Amino acid sequence: MQKLRAGILGATGAVGQQFVRLLADHPWFDISVLAASERSAGKRYFEAVNWIGSDPIPDSVREMEVVSCEPGIGCDFVFSGLDAKVAGGIESDFAAAGYAVISNARNHRMRQDVPLLIPEVNPEHTALIDAQNTSGYIVTNPNCSTVGLVCALKPIVDAFGVDRVQVSTMQALSGAGYPGVSSLDILGNVVPFIGGEEDKLETEPLKLLGALENGAVTPYRATLSAQCNRVPVLDGHMETVSLSLKRTASPEAVVGALRGFKNPLAGLGLPTAPDPFVAVFDDPRFPQPRRHSNLGRGMTVSVGRVRSCNVLDIRMVVLSHNTVRGAAGGAILNAELLVHQGRLSSRTAAAPATEKAS
Amino acid sequence: MQKLRAGILGATGAVGQQFVRLLADHPWFDISVLAASERSAGKRYFEAVNWIGSDPIPDSVREMEVVSCEPGIGCDFVFSGLDAKVAGGIESDFAAAGYAVISNARNHRMRQDVPLLIPEVNPEHTALIDAQNTSGYIVTNPNCSTVGLVCALKPIVDAFGVDRVQVSTMQALSGAGYPGVSSLDILGNVVPFIGGEEDKLETEPLKLLGALENGAVTPYRATLSAQCNRVPVLDGHMETVSLSLKRTASPEAVVGALRGFKNPLAGLGLPTAPDPFVAVFDDPRFPQPRRHSNLGRGMTVSVGRVRSCNVLDIRMVVLSHNTVRGAAGGAILNAELLVHQGRLSSRTAAAPATEKAS
Amino acid sequence: MQKLRAGILGATGAVGQQFVRLLADHPWFDISVLAASERSAGKRYFEAVNWIGSDPIPDSVREMEVVSCEPGIGCDFVFSGLDAKVAGGIESDFAAAGYAVISNARNHRMRQDVPLLIPEVNPEHTALIDAQNTSGYIVTNPNCSTVGLVCALKPIVDAFGVDRVQVSTMQALSGAGYPGVSSLDILGNVVPFIGGEEDKLETEPLKLLGALENGAVTPYRATLSAQCNRVPVLDGHMETVSLSLKRTASPEAVVGALRGFKNPLAGLGLPTAPDPFVAVFDDPRFPQPRRHSNLGRGMTVSVGRVRSCNVLDIRMVVLSHNTVRGAAGGAILNAELLVHQGRLSSRTAAAPATEKAS
Amino acid sequence: MQKLRAGILGATGAVGQQFVRLLADHPWFDISVLAASERSAGKRYFEAVNWIGSDPIPDSVREMEVVSCEPGIGCDFVFSGLDAKVAGGIESDFAAAGYAVISNARNHRMRQDVPLLIPEVNPEHTALIDAQNTSGYIVTNPNCSTVGLVCALKPIVDAFGVDRVQVSTMQALSGAGYPGVSSLDILGNVVPFIGGEEDKLETEPLKLLGALENGAVTPYRATLSAQCNRVPVLDGHMETVSLSLKRTASPEAVVGALRGFKNPLAGLGLPTAPDPFVAVFDDPRFPQPRRHSNLGRGMTVSVGRVRSCNVLDIRMVVLSHNTVRGAAGGAILNAELLVHQGRLSSRTAAAPATEKAS
Repeated sequence: MQKLRAGILGATGAVGQQFVRLLADHPWFDISVLAASERSAGKRYFEAVNWIGSDPIPDSVREMEVVSCEPGIGCDFVFSGLDAKVAGGIESDFAAAGYAVISNARNHRMRQDVPLLIPEVNPEHTALIDAQNTSGYIVTNPNCSTVGLVCALKPIVDAFGVDRVQVSTMQALSGAGYPGVSSLDILGNVVPFIGGEEDKLETEPLKLLGALENGAVTPYRATLSAQCNRVPVLDGHMETVSLSLKRTASPEAVVGALRGFKNPLAGLGLPTAPDPFVAVFDDPRFPQPRRHSNLGRGMTVSVGRVRSCNVLDIRMVVLSHNTVRGAAGGAILNAELLVHQGRLSSRTAAAPATEKAS
Repeated sequence: MQKLRAGILGATGAVGQQFVRLLADHPWFDISVLAASERSAGKRYFEAVNWIGSDPIPDSVREMEVVSCEPGIGCDFVFSGLDAKVAGGIESDFAAAGYAVISNARNHRMRQDVPLLIPEVNPEHTALIDAQNTSGYIVTNPNCSTVGLVCALKPIVDAFGVDRVQVSTMQALSGAGYPGVSSLDILGNVVPFIGGEEDKLETEPLKLLGALENGAVTPYRATLSAQCNRVPVLDGHMETVSLSLKRTASPEAVVGALRGFKNPLAGLGLPTAPDPFVAVFDDPRFPQPRRHSNLGRGMTVSVGRVRSCNVLDIRMVVLSHNTVRGAAGGAILNAELLVHQGRLSSRTAAAPATEKAS
Repeated sequence: MQKLRAGILGATGAVGQQFVRLLADHPWFDISVLAASERSAGKRYFEAVNWIGSDPIPDSVREMEVVSCEPGIGCDFVFSGLDAKVAGGIESDFAAAGYAVISNARNHRMRQDVPLLIPEVNPEHTALIDAQNTSGYIVTNPNCSTVGLVCALKPIVDAFGVDRVQVSTMQALSGAGYPGVSSLDILGNVVPFIGGEEDKLETEPLKLLGALENGAVTPYRATLSAQCNRVPVLDGHMETVSLSLKRTASPEAVVGALRGFKNPLAGLGLPTAPDPFVAVFDDPRFPQPRRHSNLGRGMTVSVGRVRSCNVLDIRMVVLSHNTVRGAAGGAILNAELLVHQGRLSSRTAAAPATEKAS
Repeated sequence: MQKLRAGILGATGAVGQQFVRLLADHPWFDISVLAASERSAGKRYFEAVNWIGSDPIPDSVREMEVVSCEPGIGCDFVFSGLDAKVAGGIESDFAAAGYAVISNARNHRMRQDVPLLIPEVNPEHTALIDAQNTSGYIVTNPNCSTVGLVCALKPIVDAFGVDRVQVSTMQALSGAGYPGVSSLDILGNVVPFIGGEEDKLETEPLKLLGALENGAVTPYRATLSAQCNRVPVLDGHMETVSLSLKRTASPEAVVGALRGFKNPLAGLGLPTAPDPFVAVFDDPRFPQPRRHSNLGRGMTVSVGRVRSCNVLDIRMVVLSHNTVRGAAGGAILNAELLVHQGRLSSRTAAAPATEKAS
């Protein structure tokens, strides 16, 4: 198979850097274009970027020239790590120009015709693409604090149904981008507020867990309540969760459902798909963000302390890597699913605009 | 008024050091005895202690000789900062020998005849002392994670009643004593488990909020569910709380109840009583442990983000200083209340053992 | 004595906030004006400021209206916490308009006619003011990493002379202002570079320790080499120092010089002057920034581990509070010295512009 | 080639765990025995160990039974991660019983007949083994703070000679083992003292850089002065270094020597040997412990900020991974060198005891 040429929109930002890092050795995708704001355009990547990772900039992109985020760039599709302030319009422009846009931005997530996608959770939602009347299309992944919760809920929803969910988060600094949170605000401290976060965490799961009916998603019927906190952790969002079930089940049965979940990606060979999808810990001290965020190269979601709750039915702790599973890695897995489904291919070969028009 | 002579049991430990620090300039109490384990006995305090505070050891006790924790020491009453492994027996011995024991240890907290006391919350519970058939008595303060929650609940309980409570904590390192948590376990990390903590947080509030009837406490009828986490913060336990009310009330009404609480200590002049008892923040970023734990010299409990909850009725964030309000400061306020109630006085003058026998 | 009316330039910044905090209860000075950039002018202080301290904004200034940094504001003199980008011109304007400007900014520090002042070190340097041909004048305090070093060196310089100094710093986050250092850059990390810092640390001490001769300062003859690092500490700059002496002395003799230093401020009653000026620790684990930065309410400089050096003569560790002794507190002590010397008084009473012109 | 069977002494400790982690996939060595204290003997490894790494315990050793540290265990040679309190005797016993002991402990490091070894620095020192009159032998690697310094000095020593060295360290928490440093001591703090560390850093380099003459090592002639500090960093010891040269050289020439160093391991194919041996950064913000400790899988030493010094000749910053290059990884590279030199082989095949006796 010929590798697909991927462009990265917002390539110099915190999420864009994760795209670069994760795509550097990808077996299906090559980075062919790095796009960013006007300020960066024309510079070489290593000059334009304030590289925050601990690995060096991959050699393959280090000297690449950064271009502006405008349709016409030479690639088969684009990943978008754009800031929400500009993502809306730019992504629409690319979709209109025939590009598949695999986006991490929040702007189009709740649009009726845009899939909000976690491949293991709702792979069939990609059918929403057919309703987008552009030659290209947009697919989104959820907010970084939504992902871990929904991955942990999905097996429980399938087995018993979930009715009400209380979640209190302890979120990592990398979720705020760079420079993001001032060290003076967070060293030895907790900040009990993250703007806009609770709203996303209370609404996105219902779309993700919803049913595709007649080409549209009917949101899952459940109620969520979120309290979001920032803690001095680099990577990995922790969440304490309490939930009520639609059908009674013991904590042991819930663990059984989590461990026995029939992963729709099993056997598909998607390069970024983790095994296991969800890891369940018996040791009550686990999971911990610094120790377990990188499980499955950052794509496995960790669950621990599954036990009964005095107020609702079940309590547990959920951890996921916020910039891998919760951002760039999740978007790459979305692209892999789209390739598998035949929805993403070489632009010259597949001429997606024409195909869809037919 | 002649100052009362206070002994400190467990004076070299983390809580004992807080007693020393807070009593150094106390207007009613003088530190007359520092007692600790056999290992420390005979040494001068500055030699026996691994002083962890940022203030120096107070000059008044620096050279004081540490003695063993045995009845017979020269003081009017004792504060106990003993470790739970040894506190049970030693505290009983002191009570039997005629000492009032103002304890921070958990051993006797749930005994029917021992007050579990927060002066602003249940000052009348000191009447339980009358049921103790020793010449001295034991009074306890609650676990450090219980205190903040109960102080914030009390005005709401009084105004509307509370039915169910979900609480997720982010607890400071000083709550684990010294050396306590290894830096390798917690730097840039969260540990989602604190042994025994959730059980205390789910049971102690019911006794604290209970009614004194016929010389015994009837626990308050409510259900609590706690999830306890350790975070890299020095002092100050944060708690996200969600609760259902017995009588409907808006978030504004709850704020009103918190701000309008009729503090039973108002006007009594207890030196350690803070004003306000509970501070309510409007800024959604507050309270924060590093910025607000020291409000009211560590005795004010802070509440923020009072808002409605999708699952239960009301959500909020609670912060309290775990080693001041949640330990040594709380115990000192307990002693002040007992002095005010005439239950604590000079041993020679009041001969408490005989009085109670009559 | 009538209190002098102090204006604060740059009152909303990190240093400006320290001025506000430290002046709130000052016995000699009242805050009469809060001045800041155009963006803040017209707002009330609590609206304009992103208050980063753990104490609340003092009530006395909370509602005060912020004005622009332009001469004409109603005060007897000004403290400047301005950013170096704008401090140069604004401070000159105020000096030209007759105000005494007590500045923390670096812009005028090395000017021949401007005192670079630490009251315990070179109080006589205030005579440089006489060479300033403006109706007001400018006095500066040194860079935050310079202060601790020079305070620790001064007694050694007086006793034995110092020839060469190697210093390696571990500097706190608050030294970079707010928002300053990104948490993603410094949590669990060290950054071995602080722009411009090493140059200041290698040059300012020579002016501070220099001799006033014929109305000018002859720099002290010594050589300094500095290596500056940022570490994840909130307040308090640590420095490991190695030095060679002009006259041989044992470590014990150096400790003797530090402890026996004849403080020129002794007995003057300056409110912010600490006692001791320099504290020397015997315990090799001390000083530590979190535990000892606040000694003398942040004005005492701490020295520890005084011992011989294999390469030069003497090694030691120095700690000082970078935003108190190293910034706002140092400037306030400078103002107190100027009052004591009769160089700072009420503008209406003293009409400094006229006096100097005469 | 048949893999050699390696035993690990002290396998449950912090260094022992690093041996386990690094040997799990080693191409030349198999872990055949895990040995630890009596307390752990008889347990399975996962039960006996408090595993502190972020990767899980390797499957290959998870269920292995831990045995006591006594000769007779079935392996070709042993790595020792033993605590210095017990390492001296146990290591001697194993050497006497015919085992090669590749030790990280400090006990035998300075013995005349024991190589203190960094393969890239003094590979010829292994000849000291011939003077050990036991059937087995002991080889040691240096203290974790020594390694980075000596690796950075070696190319400079070879090119220009080094006369005097000032070094101030900022050392990571993992260097103190587990539980090691209390979080209450180090969060947001610096501790300017590490017991015994400065002495090791001032003496070990002279043996490492010394010349092998007539079967003994003549220490290198230079003077070192060390100041050691603990900082809140997980892994990676940073050191600011200032040094004088025996032959004058510019900073550029020093960088040239570092980059042009003729690595004696080049081309040997030792699996753990990094490339490059020393990395030199041009960006003044680098190296940083969190970002660069893992270069070369933790075996590359990083150098930055090479520039001239006002007091000595050259200043620079050095970083090395303290538990990989500075402990277990360094010891494994030592073993690889010994295999290459024909000094380490299968016990049955080579019968080292007999060979040496002949």
